[in-house]
Amino acid sequence: MTTKPATNDPLALPPETTSEKFAEFISRAEEMTGAENVIIIKKKEELTKELYTDPSKAHDMYHFFDKDYFVVSATIAPRNVEEVQAIVRLCNEFEIPLWPFSIGRNVGYGGAAPRVPGSVGLDMGKNMNRVLEVSTEGAYALLEPGVTFFSLYNYLKEKKLDDQLWIDTPDLGGGSVIGNTIERGVGYTPYGDHFMMHCGLEVVLPTGELVRTGMGALPDPTQPTVEGGSLDQQPGNKCWQLMPSPGGYQPYLITFPKDTDLPKIVDVIRPLRLQMVIQNVPSIRHILLDAAVMGTKKSYYDVDRPLTEEELDNIAKKLNLGRWNFYGALYGPKPVRDVLWKVVKEAFGTIEGAKFFFPEDIKEKCVLHVRTQTLQGIPTFDELCWVDWLPNGAHIFFSPISKISGGDATKQYEIAKKMTLKAGFDFFGTFTIGMREMHHIICLVFDRENEDQKRRVHKLIRDLIQVCANNGWGEYRTHIALMDQIAETYNWNDNAQMKLNEKIKNALDPKGILAPGKNGIWPSSYNRSDWRLHAHSNRTRS
Amino acid sequence: MTTKPATNDPLALPPETTSEKFAEFISRAEEMTGAENVIIIKKKEELTKELYTDPSKAHDMYHFFDKDYFVVSATIAPRNVEEVQAIVRLCNEFEIPLWPFSIGRNVGYGGAAPRVPGSVGLDMGKNMNRVLEVSTEGAYALLEPGVTFFSLYNYLKEKKLDDQLWIDTPDLGGGSVIGNTIERGVGYTPYGDHFMMHCGLEVVLPTGELVRTGMGALPDPTQPTVEGGSLDQQPGNKCWQLMPSPGGYQPYLITFPKDTDLPKIVDVIRPLRLQMVIQNVPSIRHILLDAAVMGTKKSYYDVDRPLTEEELDNIAKKLNLGRWNFYGALYGPKPVRDVLWKVVKEAFGTIEGAKFFFPEDIKEKCVLHVRTQTLQGIPTFDELCWVDWLPNGAHIFFSPISKISGGDATKQYEIAKKMTLKAGFDFFGTFTIGMREMHHIICLVFDRENEDQKRRVHKLIRDLIQVCANNGWGEYRTHIALMDQIAETYNWNDNAQMKLNEKIKNALDPKGILAPGKNGIWPSSYNRSDWRLHAHSNRTRS
Repeated sequence: MTTKPATNDPLALPPETTSEKFAEFISRAEEMTGAENVIIIKKKEELTKELYTDPSKAHDMYHFFDKDYFVVSATIAPRNVEEVQAIVRLCNEFEIPLWPFSIGRNVGYGGAAPRVPGSVGLDMGKNMNRVLEVSTEGAYALLEPGVTFFSLYNYLKEKKLDDQLWIDTPDLGGGSVIGNTIERGVGYTPYGDHFMMHCGLEVVLPTGELVRTGMGALPDPTQPTVEGGSLDQQPGNKCWQLMPSPGGYQPYLITFPKDTDLPKIVDVIRPLRLQMVIQNVPSIRHILLDAAVMGTKKSYYDVDRPLTEEELDNIAKKLNLGRWNFYGALYGPKPVRDVLWKVVKEAFGTIEGAKFFFPEDIKEKCVLHVRTQTLQGIPTFDELCWVDWLPNGAHIFFSPISKISGGDATKQYEIAKKMTLKAGFDFFGTFTIGMREMHHIICLVFDRENEDQKRRVHKLIRDLIQVCANNGWGEYRTHIALMDQIAETYNWNDNAQMKLNEKIKNALDPKGILAPGKNGIWPSSYNRSDWRLHAHSNRTRS
Repeated sequence: MTTKPATNDPLALPPETTSEKFAEFISRAEEMTGAENVIIIKKKEELTKELYTDPSKAHDMYHFFDKDYFVVSATIAPRNVEEVQAIVRLCNEFEIPLWPFSIGRNVGYGGAAPRVPGSVGLDMGKNMNRVLEVSTEGAYALLEPGVTFFSLYNYLKEKKLDDQLWIDTPDLGGGSVIGNTIERGVGYTPYGDHFMMHCGLEVVLPTGELVRTGMGALPDPTQPTVEGGSLDQQPGNKCWQLMPSPGGYQPYLITFPKDTDLPKIVDVIRPLRLQMVIQNVPSIRHILLDAAVMGTKKSYYDVDRPLTEEELDNIAKKLNLGRWNFYGALYGPKPVRDVLWKVVKEAFGTIEGAKFFFPEDIKEKCVLHVRTQTLQGIPTFDELCWVDWLPNGAHIFFSPISKISGGDATKQYEIAKKMTLKAGFDFFGTFTIGMREMHHIICLVFDRENEDQKRRVHKLIRDLIQVCANNGWGEYRTHIALMDQIAETYNWNDNAQMKLNEKIKNALDPKGILAPGKNGIWPSSYNRSDWRLHAHSNRTRS
């Protein structure tokens, strides 16, 4: 007995869900949030690149799987915390999986797309995007999930607080502050470790209860008590630390001429970073990453193969850059910066051919001018250009971690470069340096309209994960398609960590409705092996 | 049918446990760890102050409850991780509660004593006390739970690494590095937030499985795989970050003459701390805390009542200290320190009567000389003296948190002082300043042989908890007797946080054997209200 016309069916139904049940679910959801906040994805044609700016139609814009595999059945955008709770409870009732996102800009890791096709996308950012409070005294901000790095920065600017308070931004400023923090994203100022710099969350649990973390659970005597009624005064939000202006700032670039300079650079950085002479999260960028920000591959060489060492040298020469380029900054009043700069310059000066630049030393447009913004927490979109290195450019990130050691960096770079070139792609990468570890962000750029390239890049990243695990390197974050494989590399003592994760998952989410498969954690209502994905077949389930 | 003579019974049996069952448990435990590592507490007379140095006979040396209330039935000291796992599994089998401690120096918060009388104390430190690895390149140490701040420091000194690597120590150096970290203890160097500075744990779960946290779950390809056999190569341990020598150090003291200077001091500190001009965790100490390190109460005034304002002024004058005394330090090469000192001096110089001291400015023995050690991570025992302010001196800590604000500090200080004096005790306290919060550590010193004082101090701290909660202040850590009351103040949204804690507790510890009642979290096998403790009756259960 069909109660709704089949034309209302989405492209992908949630697992184990009939058209009728889905229709009923949608109708109930529409009552809760208003029909205008519920969107069903019906046709493949709706999945275009432009959807990047419309995450309500969530799929992976940088798909290397079939374009219509990782796709939601519908998205729902609640207007307040009470509606988030109601939708979560509804999903429990219908046993329909929910995939929450804030803005959907998890670019290179799947965007807003769900791990389980047909999940309902929970769009936390569309209607909940207010900066609730900024404290100049306490240097923090209270945010809803839809606040982006750009909107927070603009808020401070409008209120004329940007001379006192800095934010920290990743390379691209369009993402959600909360989303990026929860995904363990990093930026480049001294406040670059976003998760470390959060100071409290309000969380809707998978069963619908609302919890405040840490001391947030102590009622604020100046606020009215919540007694089961409207939670409109208590929006789902996060407290995020802002950096007081350090009283001075000097970004810089150091270029190094040779590919083999990498280990020397890393070994110079380690003690400086540990001693806080380097106060922020700096980066060592491969020449092609900078080259790709400045132009397409074709603008340098019109070839259909990876560029050669000689061609890389030519590009470096043309751009007046090194084979490796170190972007750093000094923070503090001038006398402090002067002392630090002396130490930095002496230390890197031991590497033959190192050249030192301040932004004013370079007249033409260059990456240093972009990093000058980023390293003081001013969001930009400029970095995005490198994805256009190839026509129909898309990318996935491969992000292994290693200790800060020249030996590890070289080994990781050599392995990854060799495998990337062999797979027919150019190697792009950047090392971002934390206090005691490096994120090696390798950008695998491919043509998303080219099925052969998609297959090759998929095989490549799966092989990279395996080879890195064999060397003891794990990834900090990954694309939805690869979460299972990476989770399986964290398998010490017969997968003890995953068993612990599953125990907690099942206790908190007994119906398994919240982001099943996220980070390789499957609730007991799913059979892990049913959902396994493989490189050799882009489509294992229909 | 009694299988063992009743003389083998402990002072306190575990709940719901017969003599016979206990005897069988002990005999099984002895087979696992060797009889020499199992000690039964049989007589009240064994509970003396000296047991402080012998945590194997665990009770609360600073008891304000009946001396024999918070007492273990026995302690067991496993020799390796495999034995820890075996004992945990044995406790599950017998449903006997286990109270783990590392060294047992949780002084002022219950020491090594268990929340549930008759629990078995799991002494992790006695046999597992090795420094497994120190990396000078990576600036970290891999530690077993029995490593103390002193033993780690001595290890670095013996290996002549103490010129390169610093540790961070709390006021007293005798505690376990791991234990202090897990209890969210703090020290006073730039690495003062111990939990933030840990970088991986190996954990035995309440059901006996062994887990490594974070990237520790990625097998190390240079190590042989563990396959259910001996884990002797893989001891229960923790990785802890060490601070590279900052290349220079200058401790200092600033004294402030008036009691009412407190809000000014705090408001000067806030921006300096946020901007990292103050790079470490400094402290603002009340005059009596310093006075008590230098002498007993009787050595100043032989009176049986709290000291008066005038007497405090006289003591300050005598010791050449202020009513408030700020102990800080500068870290880095001299040119950096010079710049920072100029800023610090100018900022505090705005407070009338502020006086500035370096250690060499004071010839006689003084607290600055002790802090000179502590602020560079050299452990001491000197601070312990203040507990001897009264005869048979004992103390409990009351540790509310507030934001870094002169208004909050004054309000908290005024309330606590008034109530402490009214209860007949002197007020001692110190504010330790984190990046965005202050720990206000109030030291309630009493005579542990004086039943009336014990009753008064107990009532006082329960009243303080309530009044502070009414003002929106919660505590970061507390004595075992007070954990329930404090947990109940974190009750936002109908105790949502506690319900979440309980859900996780029951999932991970279904038999409820691991530290039941710790931090107010009771497993479902215990009835919370059966275990409630009250100030007006020191003994509610027998």
